[in-house]
Amino acid sequence: MILPRTGIGVDIHAFAPEDSPAPLWLAGLFWEGERGLSGHSDGDAVAHAAADALFSAAGVGDLGTHFGTDRPEYKGASGVTLLAEAARIVRAAGFEIGNVAVQFVGNRPIFSPRRQEAEAVLSAAAGAPVSVSATTSDKLGFPGRGEGITAIATALVIQNAPASAPER
Amino acid sequence: MILPRTGIGVDIHAFAPEDSPAPLWLAGLFWEGERGLSGHSDGDAVAHAAADALFSAAGVGDLGTHFGTDRPEYKGASGVTLLAEAARIVRAAGFEIGNVAVQFVGNRPIFSPRRQEAEAVLSAAAGAPVSVSATTSDKLGFPGRGEGITAIATALVIQNAPASAPER
Amino acid sequence: MILPRTGIGVDIHAFAPEDSPAPLWLAGLFWEGERGLSGHSDGDAVAHAAADALFSAAGVGDLGTHFGTDRPEYKGASGVTLLAEAARIVRAAGFEIGNVAVQFVGNRPIFSPRRQEAEAVLSAAAGAPVSVSATTSDKLGFPGRGEGITAIATALVIQNAPASAPER
Repeated sequence: MILPRTGIGVDIHAFAPEDSPAPLWLAGLFWEGERGLSGHSDGDAVAHAAADALFSAAGVGDLGTHFGTDRPEYKGASGVTLLAEAARIVRAAGFEIGNVAVQFVGNRPIFSPRRQEAEAVLSAAAGAPVSVSATTSDKLGFPGRGEGITAIATALVIQNAPASAPER
Repeated sequence: MILPRTGIGVDIHAFAPEDSPAPLWLAGLFWEGERGLSGHSDGDAVAHAAADALFSAAGVGDLGTHFGTDRPEYKGASGVTLLAEAARIVRAAGFEIGNVAVQFVGNRPIFSPRRQEAEAVLSAAAGAPVSVSATTSDKLGFPGRGEGITAIATALVIQNAPASAPER
Repeated sequence: MILPRTGIGVDIHAFAPEDSPAPLWLAGLFWEGERGLSGHSDGDAVAHAAADALFSAAGVGDLGTHFGTDRPEYKGASGVTLLAEAARIVRAAGFEIGNVAVQFVGNRPIFSPRRQEAEAVLSAAAGAPVSVSATTSDKLGFPGRGEGITAIATALVIQNAPASAPER
């Protein structure tokens, strides 16, 4: 029997300095008037955690393996671009994607009014259902102090049969 | 092929002030003589993380969507009540619940003597197996300083077929 | 229908004092010249999180239940030994192991050059695919300050049929 495989992804980004012009991109959305995040790419921790969970489930490395600083073509790439590329890599490795689920932990931005919009953008990027939920850390730790945010994701994939002949 | 779906849930609560009379409810159990947690409801981070993992797996929002401050009928609701209601919502959306697994991270209370009791109460609430495990953060971070606790959960659900005709 | 079960495991260890001779064992590997971690066992948070995720998925307790301080025979045991023993316990309880996925969060050691070596060692110990990924916390929190590390894992298992007659 071929069992599905589960994966995990955590991504943490600090907010950019107060006087930074960096815009906030999170969960594939632009958040007008919100403080941006730092990062090699656009700092979209929600999209990055989703991508890392896909890599983790398929056992094909992680964000650093595929999009690290030695891959300058991804410098500044959007989270949506990276998630779509991660899904492509996982499928090329012979897996079908079941779903991805991400939780955002942070004070800002206020997520709930745009949750379904985020889910639509990320699901389109992954070509599979991506659910997004949000919580705060009750003022505790670095998310509670407003220093940064955490996103944590899980994903489910299953190997195509026969695994030795993935579609190109 | 219908694949199961995986979900993730994190819940963090601060301990109430030392002189607060708040009782501790955690993992569906009352912990006599232990310092309580703060929260809109009873602060039961273990039950809340389990509920959020179910919502996340089914892609039907999160605790805030269903039990937020705009739903005053849930003010002060017990974690067991919220978990049972989350399971009902997920089933009404057309999903069967496989299992939920939660890990508690914190110094207090000492969990292991009551682990199986907690699992029985939460499994009854969810109508599905809920496993509970516990660890400390080795004195690091806010759980290590005794400021609060974290619970992290994952859940597995599968869509009933046909999804268009859920049982009422 | 028998559904697979998902599990979660978090393990956090502080680094040993600077002048400690403790070696670093992480993800089943010895890391020469790196500062060691504290712990009842060898402090291998990656292997421990993997083991805890297996216990969590099967609903058979946690690291403390099986390898706690009341089990002196495990004092100083390697992470690989504990992961292999966890896999044995989960199989003896009537489950097949699908996969385990672990993410390491910390500044040190630099994981990517040895990721595949770690995956080979841990997969051999578990008798099932174990994927390992790594990230930093962007200088935030205790991992960012270099005080310790976090590992977070998920696992997928499925009950053998018939569950009432597990192989011995």
